[in-house]
Amino acid sequence: MKRIYLDYAATTPLDPRVEKAMQSLVRKAFGNPSSIHAEGVAAKKALDRARTAVARCLEAHAEEVVFTSGGTESNNLAIFGVLEAVDTRCLKSLTSGVGRLPHIVTTNIEHASGLEPLRQLEREGKAEVTYVPVEQNGIVKPGEIIAAIKPNTALVSVMYANNEIGTIQPIRKIGQLLSAVRDSKFSILNSPNERRYPVFHSDACQAPSYLPCLVNALGVDLLSLDAHKIYGPKGVGALYVRPGTMLSPQLLGGGQERGHRSATENVPGIVGFAEALHSASENRKKESERIKKLRDALYSSILQNNGIVIMNGSMKEGERLPNNLNISLPGIDTEFLTLQLDAAGIAVSTKSSCLKNEKESYVISAIASRDKARARSTLRFTLGRGTTSDDIKRVAEAVNNLLKSK
Amino acid sequence: MKRIYLDYAATTPLDPRVEKAMQSLVRKAFGNPSSIHAEGVAAKKALDRARTAVARCLEAHAEEVVFTSGGTESNNLAIFGVLEAVDTRCLKSLTSGVGRLPHIVTTNIEHASGLEPLRQLEREGKAEVTYVPVEQNGIVKPGEIIAAIKPNTALVSVMYANNEIGTIQPIRKIGQLLSAVRDSKFSILNSPNERRYPVFHSDACQAPSYLPCLVNALGVDLLSLDAHKIYGPKGVGALYVRPGTMLSPQLLGGGQERGHRSATENVPGIVGFAEALHSASENRKKESERIKKLRDALYSSILQNNGIVIMNGSMKEGERLPNNLNISLPGIDTEFLTLQLDAAGIAVSTKSSCLKNEKESYVISAIASRDKARARSTLRFTLGRGTTSDDIKRVAEAVNNLLKSK
Repeated sequence: MKRIYLDYAATTPLDPRVEKAMQSLVRKAFGNPSSIHAEGVAAKKALDRARTAVARCLEAHAEEVVFTSGGTESNNLAIFGVLEAVDTRCLKSLTSGVGRLPHIVTTNIEHASGLEPLRQLEREGKAEVTYVPVEQNGIVKPGEIIAAIKPNTALVSVMYANNEIGTIQPIRKIGQLLSAVRDSKFSILNSPNERRYPVFHSDACQAPSYLPCLVNALGVDLLSLDAHKIYGPKGVGALYVRPGTMLSPQLLGGGQERGHRSATENVPGIVGFAEALHSASENRKKESERIKKLRDALYSSILQNNGIVIMNGSMKEGERLPNNLNISLPGIDTEFLTLQLDAAGIAVSTKSSCLKNEKESYVISAIASRDKARARSTLRFTLGRGTTSDDIKRVAEAVNNLLKSK
Repeated sequence: MKRIYLDYAATTPLDPRVEKAMQSLVRKAFGNPSSIHAEGVAAKKALDRARTAVARCLEAHAEEVVFTSGGTESNNLAIFGVLEAVDTRCLKSLTSGVGRLPHIVTTNIEHASGLEPLRQLEREGKAEVTYVPVEQNGIVKPGEIIAAIKPNTALVSVMYANNEIGTIQPIRKIGQLLSAVRDSKFSILNSPNERRYPVFHSDACQAPSYLPCLVNALGVDLLSLDAHKIYGPKGVGALYVRPGTMLSPQLLGGGQERGHRSATENVPGIVGFAEALHSASENRKKESERIKKLRDALYSSILQNNGIVIMNGSMKEGERLPNNLNISLPGIDTEFLTLQLDAAGIAVSTKSSCLKNEKESYVISAIASRDKARARSTLRFTLGRGTTSDDIKRVAEAVNNLLKSK
């Protein structure tokens, strides 16, 4: 029986065109891009081409793209990098009533790789963090992000699209408002002639297949991307870095990536990532429409046949990734249901694969007023390029049959 | 004309068997190892198998292997990880005459990814570092490493084999002596019932093709490895971590790699790395003998025909990697010579590809009493699996002809 994979938010299969581009590179340009001989020059050229291609997808300049080992590293580099680069002398002048640490504003539904660095900074007494709660629809109000900003706010970090419930955050609106905040000279971190702070970071790892990631339109200073979420290879990603952004490197050594990230560049992986991002941009519109229809059909069928379904996160146009369906089935052991579906040849998940040791989803807790029954009974379907109409029919039938027997 | 690549220390081509193993994995097990469905389980199994295979090559246990994005990350994780995990309360009890910071002992010829993290710690006032100079043969005396240890020494970091001159450090001897230091209860960082400090780290990225990397025989607590130096893929490596070693994670998020290194595991890369390391272990003895003969023939021919050749680093048996030849040609512009050789189809290098912006090699400076003419005129040949006897004849002839015309 054909397997049906509906866990594209966890990881995606490698696009055969991406694989081909990587294989060709491995043969033609295996050199170290830092070497001055022909093998090194060929690798450097491939690296430069990939950097330009990635930049083009973001409407950015090539030198603003820093390649990393993936989304987790990009988020860690953004957060630790900005915090460590803050000139703490500015903070000494603070009057009472305001903390003497750099301050960060974020939401309460960021990915683990966005939240854990913040928790670490708090534990170590290196930053104070405001976690702005999202609304019950899974979306944060831009005004609340702005209201949380203080004169010592160094960083605002808001994910573009959530990995569990697929809700899309109003990044562009936040970007616009932040720009005004920067102009207002409210921040004590800026010297008179610059307006770098607060720096705006967004984790866009789940976004490129369905949402444009144009850094100027979004108004972001830092944008995290990951290849393996967009049919590219595992172990490679990027951080877009706007010129002027103060960022301390987290990997030190040979000074690659203009000093932002030392290590011999993973050229085949980077070439694959560039190909994957380009392909995501090209197919975005058509694929989004196709996938949305399938997702909506799956939801309708499950809803029709079951009284207990709770939708998690907004289903409004433009507020949710078209490939994401996340429901709660209070009272149902959805982890067991996931295993039953797996036995029936269908791969889905309960929550983020990065949270396997936790009983309930903090994302659902955040939007469900801490309703444990709802947070513990989540079921996530994330569709992708391989998903067909027949697949959806089979999945709906399997889910409905299994739920009927409960 | 066939290209002759003699820069295997910079990077190696991908072994076709490694490539095949990775391709097969990409098709069979593309899932996220943290997912509970069949696709995730298949990936997890492949990951576990690779971890066991790597551990076997090190005579270690699978759970002691932490996969990383490569040698730079492994070195950074080892150094920053150990330093951040030091319980600084121990240091407050220090009497005068001893610094109140954790102390690190290293050599003056470590790789940039081993030196730069130390320099950063010094700049930030987080550690004091003793750089023990190597002898003129490029090898450090174990007694001098031990003599540099203080009660507050948290880490001893000595590379196994040097990337520029190929000299092999007496890791096993240092390991034995360090074990005695730990037993002597000299360290104030150890509590009464443990003897973790000083932690012993070695950067073994250049070693596995020619030297056994058995962690217990070497007596190391941490060992850095890199796939792309041993015919494996770029962007993947490992850090061996002895149980009980206190290590703060540097990448935070989903808690993968038992919390030591968050991020979705690069399973295809890891499988390729395991295959490459296994292959290095299997071919080590035979290939070392073959390569040594070729290297020695190359050296003899160049030496015979040129009066100005200075050998950099010991040529004694067991003191140098068999694939490395590093000479100085005082008065010769070896960067130009490298480009001339490249035009003749031969890829060699002057120094580490991670030092492209520096005029002279700090490694050669260290062994040549800061003789600038010698440090600026280096030429490095690093041989590998693809190197043949005919290649060596052609290279010797090309070098000798070019030098004759100078």
